Amino acid sequence: MAEMSFVHEGERVDDLQISGLSIIQNPAAFCFGMDAVLLSGFVRVKPGEEVLDMCTGNGILPLLLSAKTAAKSICGIEIQEESADLACRNVEMNGLSQRVRIVCGDIKEAGEYFRPASFDVVSCNPPYIAGGRGLKNPDDAKNIARHEILCDFNDVCAAAVLMLKDGGRFCMVHRPERVPELIRALSAHRLECKRMRFVHPYADREPAMVLMEAVKGGGLGARIEKPLIIYESEGVYSAEIREDYGF
Amino acid sequence: MAEMSFVHEGERVDDLQISGLSIIQNPAAFCFGMDAVLLSGFVRVKPGEEVLDMCTGNGILPLLLSAKTAAKSICGIEIQEESADLACRNVEMNGLSQRVRIVCGDIKEAGEYFRPASFDVVSCNPPYIAGGRGLKNPDDAKNIARHEILCDFNDVCAAAVLMLKDGGRFCMVHRPERVPELIRALSAHRLECKRMRFVHPYADREPAMVLMEAVKGGGLGARIEKPLIIYESEGVYSAEIREDYGF
Repeated sequence: MAEMSFVHEGERVDDLQISGLSIIQNPAAFCFGMDAVLLSGFVRVKPGEEVLDMCTGNGILPLLLSAKTAAKSICGIEIQEESADLACRNVEMNGLSQRVRIVCGDIKEAGEYFRPASFDVVSCNPPYIAGGRGLKNPDDAKNIARHEILCDFNDVCAAAVLMLKDGGRFCMVHRPERVPELIRALSAHRLECKRMRFVHPYADREPAMVLMEAVKGGGLGARIEKPLIIYESEGVYSAEIREDYGF
Repeated sequence: MAEMSFVHEGERVDDLQISGLSIIQNPAAFCFGMDAVLLSGFVRVKPGEEVLDMCTGNGILPLLLSAKTAAKSICGIEIQEESADLACRNVEMNGLSQRVRIVCGDIKEAGEYFRPASFDVVSCNPPYIAGGRGLKNPDDAKNIARHEILCDFNDVCAAAVLMLKDGGRFCMVHRPERVPELIRALSAHRLECKRMRFVHPYADREPAMVLMEAVKGGGLGARIEKPLIIYESEGVYSAEIREDYGF
């Protein structure tokens, strides 16, 4: 297989079940989860728009958005060198180098890599867990992806508003219990929450994730969408998850 | 019927289907809706606690809470004289004068009627619709109940935080599209959103209402509850609505 040259020891290749795409992942580091897939369906990108994915990890979002949208270009930025390297190989392996570009860098310095106010859409699947104090292995790749060790939500908002054009959309996935905090942090950065969708494991259970869209300089008024249900019964994905996400 | 002496011309008496309670309503003014009933199920009152219901209208919340909780006392405040008069008659007619007290007054002057920081729980079913400008009949009782003519959400928060003890809970029902605004207004008044439940007409539809609990001086972290679904199919209430609310 030609793709084997892209794959290093300890890594595996998964079929993304869309447009023939596949993704190299390192199970010892961090593999994408359903949150990334659901975010790729929540983000709305119009034909010709330019997208920046922050905290892009192994590049799952740029890969999925390249297939699902007619974005002119998609950039990804990732602070962890190994993940960024994986993301670069994923872009090459899938022949996407024309439309997708990966940068290894800190979102807190996004202005050094990209022109401010140049993106129509910024997406982010940030670390969910507040703070990183008390962690035994704060340098561990999985901990950096999950905990607010190298960046917190305030940093994410500051980078998003810097990178977005006026009226541009910032889309993200996060934890439902942090919704009040998220809404306040967003609006402290001129990002007004305009659309939210809660993701529930089952129809009669509390949500496990929230998908949120904020608009730079947006006015008041948010749309709360219908619940996104993962399973219709134990082990059986809902029709939406099967039909829209190919699970 | 003994109760007839409480009822004026143009009014009707409805059975509340709980603890033998009934309520006088004036269809020309404002009749309680499902929002009030759902709020009465969302509010948590511990035995012996003291409750204030703001914008109490014809007293539906105090009536329902008197039956559903072991509150020591429930006060209601209503700015519209006719509604407050109805609420007083409802309290008397149901023999609740020992536990329930109605005051006709402006929540912006709540401190003149009640001792600050004296309530464990404040509930409110406030006017939902932002602003009152452009209305043909801003003095109309229904418009005052629905539009932010005599008080806006900022006034509601200011009154709630003034009346609540530290750690006390403020429970309300509002419009989902205003959630970001509500969360910010609450926290500007030291009321932290701690619990939210969205009410959907059907399981696969956007929510029509949101129930929200905020705690005075509360810390970060909110619980988003499972969706509350009104109808399981056209004209058929869901099991929860039938069993918990007696519809």
